[in-house]
Amino acid sequence: MKQKFFYGALIVSFLLSGVAHYTDMSSTVQFIISAIAIVFVAGFLGKATESVAHYAGQRLGGFLNATFGNAAELIISIFLIKEGLFDMVKASLTGAIIGNLLLVLGLSLFAGGLKYKEQKFNISLAGHNGTLMLMAVVALIIPAMFAGTKVITPKETDTLSLIVAGILIVAYIFWLYFSMVTHKNYLSDQEEMEPDHHEEPAWSKSKSVLFLVVATVMVALVSEWLVGTLHDFTTQFGFTELFLGAFIIAIVGNAAEHSAAVMMALKNKIGTSVEIAIGSSLQIALFVAPVLVFVSFLFGETMDFVFTTIELVAIGVAVIIAKSITQDGKTNWYEGLLLMLVYVILGVAFFLV
Amino acid sequence: MKQKFFYGALIVSFLLSGVAHYTDMSSTVQFIISAIAIVFVAGFLGKATESVAHYAGQRLGGFLNATFGNAAELIISIFLIKEGLFDMVKASLTGAIIGNLLLVLGLSLFAGGLKYKEQKFNISLAGHNGTLMLMAVVALIIPAMFAGTKVITPKETDTLSLIVAGILIVAYIFWLYFSMVTHKNYLSDQEEMEPDHHEEPAWSKSKSVLFLVVATVMVALVSEWLVGTLHDFTTQFGFTELFLGAFIIAIVGNAAEHSAAVMMALKNKIGTSVEIAIGSSLQIALFVAPVLVFVSFLFGETMDFVFTTIELVAIGVAVIIAKSITQDGKTNWYEGLLLMLVYVILGVAFFLV
Amino acid sequence: MKQKFFYGALIVSFLLSGVAHYTDMSSTVQFIISAIAIVFVAGFLGKATESVAHYAGQRLGGFLNATFGNAAELIISIFLIKEGLFDMVKASLTGAIIGNLLLVLGLSLFAGGLKYKEQKFNISLAGHNGTLMLMAVVALIIPAMFAGTKVITPKETDTLSLIVAGILIVAYIFWLYFSMVTHKNYLSDQEEMEPDHHEEPAWSKSKSVLFLVVATVMVALVSEWLVGTLHDFTTQFGFTELFLGAFIIAIVGNAAEHSAAVMMALKNKIGTSVEIAIGSSLQIALFVAPVLVFVSFLFGETMDFVFTTIELVAIGVAVIIAKSITQDGKTNWYEGLLLMLVYVILGVAFFLV
Repeated sequence: MKQKFFYGALIVSFLLSGVAHYTDMSSTVQFIISAIAIVFVAGFLGKATESVAHYAGQRLGGFLNATFGNAAELIISIFLIKEGLFDMVKASLTGAIIGNLLLVLGLSLFAGGLKYKEQKFNISLAGHNGTLMLMAVVALIIPAMFAGTKVITPKETDTLSLIVAGILIVAYIFWLYFSMVTHKNYLSDQEEMEPDHHEEPAWSKSKSVLFLVVATVMVALVSEWLVGTLHDFTTQFGFTELFLGAFIIAIVGNAAEHSAAVMMALKNKIGTSVEIAIGSSLQIALFVAPVLVFVSFLFGETMDFVFTTIELVAIGVAVIIAKSITQDGKTNWYEGLLLMLVYVILGVAFFLV
Repeated sequence: MKQKFFYGALIVSFLLSGVAHYTDMSSTVQFIISAIAIVFVAGFLGKATESVAHYAGQRLGGFLNATFGNAAELIISIFLIKEGLFDMVKASLTGAIIGNLLLVLGLSLFAGGLKYKEQKFNISLAGHNGTLMLMAVVALIIPAMFAGTKVITPKETDTLSLIVAGILIVAYIFWLYFSMVTHKNYLSDQEEMEPDHHEEPAWSKSKSVLFLVVATVMVALVSEWLVGTLHDFTTQFGFTELFLGAFIIAIVGNAAEHSAAVMMALKNKIGTSVEIAIGSSLQIALFVAPVLVFVSFLFGETMDFVFTTIELVAIGVAVIIAKSITQDGKTNWYEGLLLMLVYVILGVAFFLV
Repeated sequence: MKQKFFYGALIVSFLLSGVAHYTDMSSTVQFIISAIAIVFVAGFLGKATESVAHYAGQRLGGFLNATFGNAAELIISIFLIKEGLFDMVKASLTGAIIGNLLLVLGLSLFAGGLKYKEQKFNISLAGHNGTLMLMAVVALIIPAMFAGTKVITPKETDTLSLIVAGILIVAYIFWLYFSMVTHKNYLSDQEEMEPDHHEEPAWSKSKSVLFLVVATVMVALVSEWLVGTLHDFTTQFGFTELFLGAFIIAIVGNAAEHSAAVMMALKNKIGTSVEIAIGSSLQIALFVAPVLVFVSFLFGETMDFVFTTIELVAIGVAVIIAKSITQDGKTNWYEGLLLMLVYVILGVAFFLV
């Protein structure tokens, strides 16, 4: 029943989005329809990834899950880079990080906390993730700081950005190796808590691979249609690129993960919610963002790693608050509320700029 | 015996302060006398609040205690706002926060640590308070950051200040609900440790209410007299508004809490000391400060929420150090000394500016 | 065998360094030879200090160890101050702090983590050291912040620098008193883990004192020779003072401690490695740096305590990452890798400036 509705909505929203694009409807209509479509195609991509991951075995599967997890975000950003909208890319990366750390995590803790007085999860994982997030913040702050002092040329800033991006990717690859190979059992409290992972997948092996390809193509198409509307959309409504990138794009592009995290919290699997929210931010900071720097380099014009002060403060604030709240391995509704309130404060501030 | 001395000093200092004000004595004399008087009337207000709280039942009582706890600070600030001394209001809010986190907490840990080798308290409470303080710092930093970038107009800064103030008050109200209703037992190690709360109050119900009214009026009068002297006092001695607000006003206005916290530490109830010190900072950041923004709005000219960089660094530093020291739930004399040394460094810096 | 090689290398490198200096060889040759020599004379000073400490009894011995531990760093810096190279002094202090917290600690955790899956140490110690490092960061930030706002004159900045330096030394002396007298057993997991300390020293009492004097003189001479080459060396190779001070001088001046920390990690005494790395940073921040401020004051021109933003960010980043990684009392290879990667990012940034 639920399944049928999902696939119906997937196909209808995808087709409508294509029709709106090719019949050149008003930007607002195009934007709304393709924003809805992206939620469903991203969800479909998630299902396909999980199914392929099942057949690929746990190690490769974990890797596939981790890298395809933010595929929608990555693809949208590549189209934004092609359009030269570097500022909106950085705003949407910022938005994805703070959205995951404040809104997704906050909603999960709040919803879970209303149902259960106190929820617990593995403290080691929280500690590691916190340190990794700090490292990501450091890596983002350093190029900005040097670019700000004007002691280095734009060309040197690009070099520094590429080196920092390379180091972040190295850190990310070793993180996968650490968490999936050398210290696999050390970090997880999920094995026991997540029987879902051992469920039979819905599709056969070949069907899963086919669907993964189809889903990726669908995400790419809808992303392109969505990005095409943004310019008109900003001029019409007076939204700043910053607000649009950091809040609208980020929420739409991560909708699938949002609902998964909240579902898990309501099933008292708060550890999984925390991992989805923080893990997703980590992927964006340590993998998606640096990959985009290299992508822009290959496109001919390097997108530097210089985030604005406002973006850096927003990311720094989100990381510090999320780290402080998760470090004791226990959560409650009030902690969730606090995270959401900080998100609202940042949202108001970004909206007013 | 002690009681008699207290009431004697209360009445004498209050009357002298009034005489000094109405006979127009020199500002220095007026300042000194009313500064002494404010210590006693604030102490009297504290006693009256506690007594009324006793009759009001635990929940309403807790709320009364919490909101009247910084009544003196609030009333002084309202008179400062009426005089248009916005900078001094912010300086005294800053001073109250760092004074509680560094001086009061430092003195308590130091005094308690000289008597007992190691003192312990409930870690959950420390974690929560730390996160709340971080949120308060975030809320203070964001308007300052945006105002600093000049991308928003003063009018938008006022709007942002009012919204942030509203969100902080929401956070504070839910914090009261969380800590007094849904997770009452979860956070407290005081119930067992504080038999004082169950002592018989000194006054009958009607007397308590009467005294609460009288005490509030006395605090209001002395505050007005004190504030009246400040302008002359700064010009005469060359103290900056910043130093006067952040150190003199803050110490005088919180004297009652200071002595209570140190007393508790010497009775090995370090958890109560920590709660007085951190709880009082929290009230100021999450309740007094935002209420003052609304008060100034009602007076016709909005006091924005834009603290100076120096004030923000001072608050940030105090929160981070206090959080780091309290997060293990164990304290000793050296931690107290460190807090006091940081307070001295900040004091010297504020004095030199 | 190992011993013979060490003393041979010590004497040969020392003599060659002197020959290179007095025969006025090229700056590059002089720099390289004296950089090699400083590693061996610093190692010799370390051995002599330990031997004298053995005879002096545990308390005075601990104090000697702590204060002579960074003698090489201190002596090099005094020669830099005599030459008026204040910026290079601050850069090398910065470099010593981040080198210890990121490179030494990172290498120890990495090497130890490859051999042992998880290594553990006393959490109380880590907490205390973390708080002290935070205090040091605060003390460094405050003068810089005020100097930056231009609200105080250079003369007032000097006064503030001297007062802050004095407070840091007070904090350091009380830290020695706390950790060696009042809470000696509370912080140590070394007593049991470090039988080496109870080994018979290699030399008699009088020989030890003699060697301590000889070693100090040798360090002083080689430091002077090394510093003499720096000016030419920077102009010839285009290295900035910042990079030279923060990376080359800092690595050379702390080489002895580096190898000791890694050795301990490989013997699964990770607590000792952590203490060497963090303890050494603390000595530099709380003792060497403030002493240098007073030394410059005695030389006639006060070196203020105003570090550049880049240096402060580097120190702040190193402290926060190291604190985050050590606060759970457990370490693994990936944490070591992260620390080293952050060091590389900072190194690249400093090199490009």
